[in-house]
Amino acid sequence: MKALVSIIMGSTSDLPVMVEAAKILNDFKIPFEINALSAHRSPLQVMDFAKCAHDKGIRVIIAGAGGAAHLPGVIAAMTSLPVIGVPIKSSNSIDGWDSILSILQMPQGVPVATVGLNGAMNAGILSAQILATGDAELTNKVMAYKNGLTKKITKANEEMKQIKFEYKTN
Amino acid sequence: MKALVSIIMGSTSDLPVMVEAAKILNDFKIPFEINALSAHRSPLQVMDFAKCAHDKGIRVIIAGAGGAAHLPGVIAAMTSLPVIGVPIKSSNSIDGWDSILSILQMPQGVPVATVGLNGAMNAGILSAQILATGDAELTNKVMAYKNGLTKKITKANEEMKQIKFEYKTN
Amino acid sequence: MKALVSIIMGSTSDLPVMVEAAKILNDFKIPFEINALSAHRSPLQVMDFAKCAHDKGIRVIIAGAGGAAHLPGVIAAMTSLPVIGVPIKSSNSIDGWDSILSILQMPQGVPVATVGLNGAMNAGILSAQILATGDAELTNKVMAYKNGLTKKITKANEEMKQIKFEYKTN
Amino acid sequence: MKALVSIIMGSTSDLPVMVEAAKILNDFKIPFEINALSAHRSPLQVMDFAKCAHDKGIRVIIAGAGGAAHLPGVIAAMTSLPVIGVPIKSSNSIDGWDSILSILQMPQGVPVATVGLNGAMNAGILSAQILATGDAELTNKVMAYKNGLTKKITKANEEMKQIKFEYKTN
Amino acid sequence: MKALVSIIMGSTSDLPVMVEAAKILNDFKIPFEINALSAHRSPLQVMDFAKCAHDKGIRVIIAGAGGAAHLPGVIAAMTSLPVIGVPIKSSNSIDGWDSILSILQMPQGVPVATVGLNGAMNAGILSAQILATGDAELTNKVMAYKNGLTKKITKANEEMKQIKFEYKTN
Amino acid sequence: MKALVSIIMGSTSDLPVMVEAAKILNDFKIPFEINALSAHRSPLQVMDFAKCAHDKGIRVIIAGAGGAAHLPGVIAAMTSLPVIGVPIKSSNSIDGWDSILSILQMPQGVPVATVGLNGAMNAGILSAQILATGDAELTNKVMAYKNGLTKKITKANEEMKQIKFEYKTN
Amino acid sequence: MKALVSIIMGSTSDLPVMVEAAKILNDFKIPFEINALSAHRSPLQVMDFAKCAHDKGIRVIIAGAGGAAHLPGVIAAMTSLPVIGVPIKSSNSIDGWDSILSILQMPQGVPVATVGLNGAMNAGILSAQILATGDAELTNKVMAYKNGLTKKITKANEEMKQIKFEYKTN
Amino acid sequence: MKALVSIIMGSTSDLPVMVEAAKILNDFKIPFEINALSAHRSPLQVMDFAKCAHDKGIRVIIAGAGGAAHLPGVIAAMTSLPVIGVPIKSSNSIDGWDSILSILQMPQGVPVATVGLNGAMNAGILSAQILATGDAELTNKVMAYKNGLTKKITKANEEMKQIKFEYKTN
Repeated sequence: MKALVSIIMGSTSDLPVMVEAAKILNDFKIPFEINALSAHRSPLQVMDFAKCAHDKGIRVIIAGAGGAAHLPGVIAAMTSLPVIGVPIKSSNSIDGWDSILSILQMPQGVPVATVGLNGAMNAGILSAQILATGDAELTNKVMAYKNGLTKKITKANEEMKQIKFEYKTN
Repeated sequence: MKALVSIIMGSTSDLPVMVEAAKILNDFKIPFEINALSAHRSPLQVMDFAKCAHDKGIRVIIAGAGGAAHLPGVIAAMTSLPVIGVPIKSSNSIDGWDSILSILQMPQGVPVATVGLNGAMNAGILSAQILATGDAELTNKVMAYKNGLTKKITKANEEMKQIKFEYKTN
Repeated sequence: MKALVSIIMGSTSDLPVMVEAAKILNDFKIPFEINALSAHRSPLQVMDFAKCAHDKGIRVIIAGAGGAAHLPGVIAAMTSLPVIGVPIKSSNSIDGWDSILSILQMPQGVPVATVGLNGAMNAGILSAQILATGDAELTNKVMAYKNGLTKKITKANEEMKQIKFEYKTN
Repeated sequence: MKALVSIIMGSTSDLPVMVEAAKILNDFKIPFEINALSAHRSPLQVMDFAKCAHDKGIRVIIAGAGGAAHLPGVIAAMTSLPVIGVPIKSSNSIDGWDSILSILQMPQGVPVATVGLNGAMNAGILSAQILATGDAELTNKVMAYKNGLTKKITKANEEMKQIKFEYKTN
Repeated sequence: MKALVSIIMGSTSDLPVMVEAAKILNDFKIPFEINALSAHRSPLQVMDFAKCAHDKGIRVIIAGAGGAAHLPGVIAAMTSLPVIGVPIKSSNSIDGWDSILSILQMPQGVPVATVGLNGAMNAGILSAQILATGDAELTNKVMAYKNGLTKKITKANEEMKQIKFEYKTN
Repeated sequence: MKALVSIIMGSTSDLPVMVEAAKILNDFKIPFEINALSAHRSPLQVMDFAKCAHDKGIRVIIAGAGGAAHLPGVIAAMTSLPVIGVPIKSSNSIDGWDSILSILQMPQGVPVATVGLNGAMNAGILSAQILATGDAELTNKVMAYKNGLTKKITKANEEMKQIKFEYKTN
Repeated sequence: MKALVSIIMGSTSDLPVMVEAAKILNDFKIPFEINALSAHRSPLQVMDFAKCAHDKGIRVIIAGAGGAAHLPGVIAAMTSLPVIGVPIKSSNSIDGWDSILSILQMPQGVPVATVGLNGAMNAGILSAQILATGDAELTNKVMAYKNGLTKKITKANEEMKQIKFEYKTN
Repeated sequence: MKALVSIIMGSTSDLPVMVEAAKILNDFKIPFEINALSAHRSPLQVMDFAKCAHDKGIRVIIAGAGGAAHLPGVIAAMTSLPVIGVPIKSSNSIDGWDSILSILQMPQGVPVATVGLNGAMNAGILSAQILATGDAELTNKVMAYKNGLTKKITKANEEMKQIKFEYKTN
């Protein structure tokens, strides 16, 4: 089993956020790998990783980082694979604005597919959707997952409606 | 020839931005369609589009919108396809913050792959990268495109270095 | 007794904020209903709700959501009823800016009456004011409520003035 | 014919924005009045206006202002009528943030129904929706208006699709 | 002893911030009064206060409020006295931006002398400086206060320099 | 005739903004002086100015600056006089946020009375209000000025009401 | 041993942040001094310090401050030495934006080398890099330090990879 | 003559901003080189440049970039030299916030000395100050430059003081 998705984070302290991507990939039964590589502290390893990812069989890269979050963009610069960026609200971050803007505002020619702040789970789902463009079975799994979301909120709504007020009618 | 990518924009006034996605898809020889559908002014058409896109053969959706930019998220809610969101800085926008945050900050379970402000060209490239995950020929085209970026800046640099200063050494 | 106001929230986790709308409607003796429907996780239910609300007798809709808060706008797109939007500061929100801008900055033709961050109580009062435009008795209740606000702060002021400083004169 | 809606602006320089509210009310055949009254330069007139508006027959107030935009809130403090606030991006405004936050973030008990930056047209539509809660004919007009929006974008889309690219399929 | 400074706050919940103004006025032996009056919940009392303040002997008004903080501006509209505004970071505030901009960005003709977020102590000092423009003794007190600041930081610096590092030289 | 107010600006390029303070002081017949002194380019002159201002007869200082606007705070650090700060939106400013925050957010003990962005006219009026705390004639002038504002907007309103719409009633 | 680097902070309450600069200088065996001097509370001491620093042997100044953080800029105005500014997120700060912009946005001619929010450790490293421009041994130490960063993250990565998921491949 | 300073920009379109660094280095007679290298479009060239810069004799690197501005940080990751970052407000930038935060908020261990938005001239001066830490003659030049700033504003002030007002005293 070769990894199709590679999860990269800029620091091991980002793990509590990034593990959500791992969990959802596991649920979708998509083989993945997970590593901490820093654009600023281990730049050569990042470069090696980015240049070799495609040939190793990786099809999507998920890269999360906080602050001046260069990791997703630096990887995107050196691969033809789609790179999903996860902005992380780390300590000393300016409310997450720094990581969002550092990841989102890439120059023409080098996109990063950015998800919401701390949105590692969504990065996992997006990578499944990307892989599903060429995989009918995975498409079905994504659809089943989306239907599950509907069921979950419908059930939660039923429970919530137990709250009582005199003038409440439903 | 069936469209693989569908470009959707919230208003025909977004065309000057969104046409960049069309141009790059044309360059990559990826068949695409282009439509203006509004989450707020033609919601039923948006729903019809989103539900049928996969079965029509679409593999990636690029959706651009300004202000309270709900179009990409509303489409993402009703398809298993990857949706790329393009925040547009329209008139009466608050410097683009409104469209960026409305597109980026999607809830768990329903990601939108957001690119930078007015980043329609990057949305086109990203859709090529996504399709290339299952298409070796397209992978080569993306690589060639990236190499072209390097050549272009190298050439521009050579020209720029003509400027003269007494203490300039290169 | 048929509901005149429908309170909708994007997630049952928004209940601690949105219950304040229910409480104030109860105080005003305005019949209401309350549901969790998600623009992104149960879009078809949202559409059904929005299309049928008027014919069921609903006259005002209060919709609260956090993050990329599309719910109020998506409902407003499919009903002629006034929609009051409540931006909610949820976890992973960017200080509430995302929900405020996603709700407030609607395009021409499709307004959402936005209240302040977590302002569900004010949404309830606003719905009473809207219903009071055709209901003299409710107008009197709103006026009584506003007079009550004056009395409350006047009384709190009297208590506060007990703090002593040598050079304080009142 | 007595005015049902009163349009108030903080300065006559706000007229180019606020006239859009007047135009749409005219289209809906809703009688209205229009005045410039300043919370800071003519506070007593604002107070007189707010206290008498209901008894004069006004049912909805639309108040637009820029900068530290106190007008909508100050009026809301002295009437039981619903007040719609229009944040205006005036000169020396800080990109409109000042007027948005000054209007939106009202305290508990005194809501202002805020629309988007320079959103006077939407304020007009919202006032029609509010009046329509007790007026079936006006409800029909609002619905017809919304259907018109759909037709307009559908037609614009047809025209837009004339642009040609080799790989465009629709 | 008649009050020269009047401290007003929009809600008794602002007292923990505003009491710092009271303390410093007490230290400067400037007679003052303190009240909670709301621009939105007790607007007539605010108007009465503002119109009568000068004739009662008040020379400077300090007004603190949070959120859509209209109190300082509304008072400034109805008095010739200098009004010092204190933006307060209250609950549901958007990090204080709302109160800062609502107080600071007053229109031409009606200034509010704004101090920093939660800056009630500085408002007290500023009112002393204003009164000192016509009072030589108070000028001396202000100067003594400023010299005291210098002494305090000089002493704290001496203590702080006790921390030891091998390569520390002072 | 000795100057009572000193207008200081950080650069002669700030003159088009700061001249409004001079004009209004001239209108109020308050003697003033005007200078460009930079906290960063002529710090010793700023220090000399600040230390001597009171003894020269100055009673209020108006200091305007853009960008990292230290001038008002640096002067406030060295005088007991009230200092009014005018944030200026200069070129390369970040929409004025830099000058606003650099002037407003002074530490405890050293207030600057901040007015709105480019609010030099209001700084002039505020200095008149401060001087008027000890000058009954100037108090009357300030009151007359404020009444003039009311008259001006009342007259502008009469003119504005000439615009015609079929459903306009006033 | 004479100090080559001088660490200055605007308040002793900034010590928990600024001590990180001291620690790293100690690690690099660079002699330093550390003081709390306030641009607003002890301006004359700041001036004396800035004017004499070069002649005392200081080669780099690190200045940290919060809020309207004038200290780095005021020092830079009076010395030819490079000044490194550390924005500090203090209490009543507006999320750190005030200190960042007050330090960063210096006018032409008077730069401050700004590091990230609370970035005192990086200020220490930057001062080492500056001193290393004329010191080969220190250059080697900086390089060794950077290599250490790589080793640390490589080791942390090895540990992190112990987490197990069924579909995890590395 | 070998270059001591290397000016790098992310795109030749940044030249109008970055040329100010070249001009001031020329004025200071500091030998420099100038190149456009992109972290995203020519990453290998950036890496080569960064790794070799020290050995070629470069002592300070000035790197300017806009949007998601990774260039300064990516260079800083691969050299022991001090890197000065110039945030550039490019087209589609979000008012410059993106480039400021991408450059400023570097992680611990890898500082970038950030100057203000479009502050290339200040980057040039800062590099002179850094080189002057080991060069007495250059120290004198920096001091002379700073004195020149004082003379220039003093002269501009003299000219500005020609404006006449009846109540102006200087």
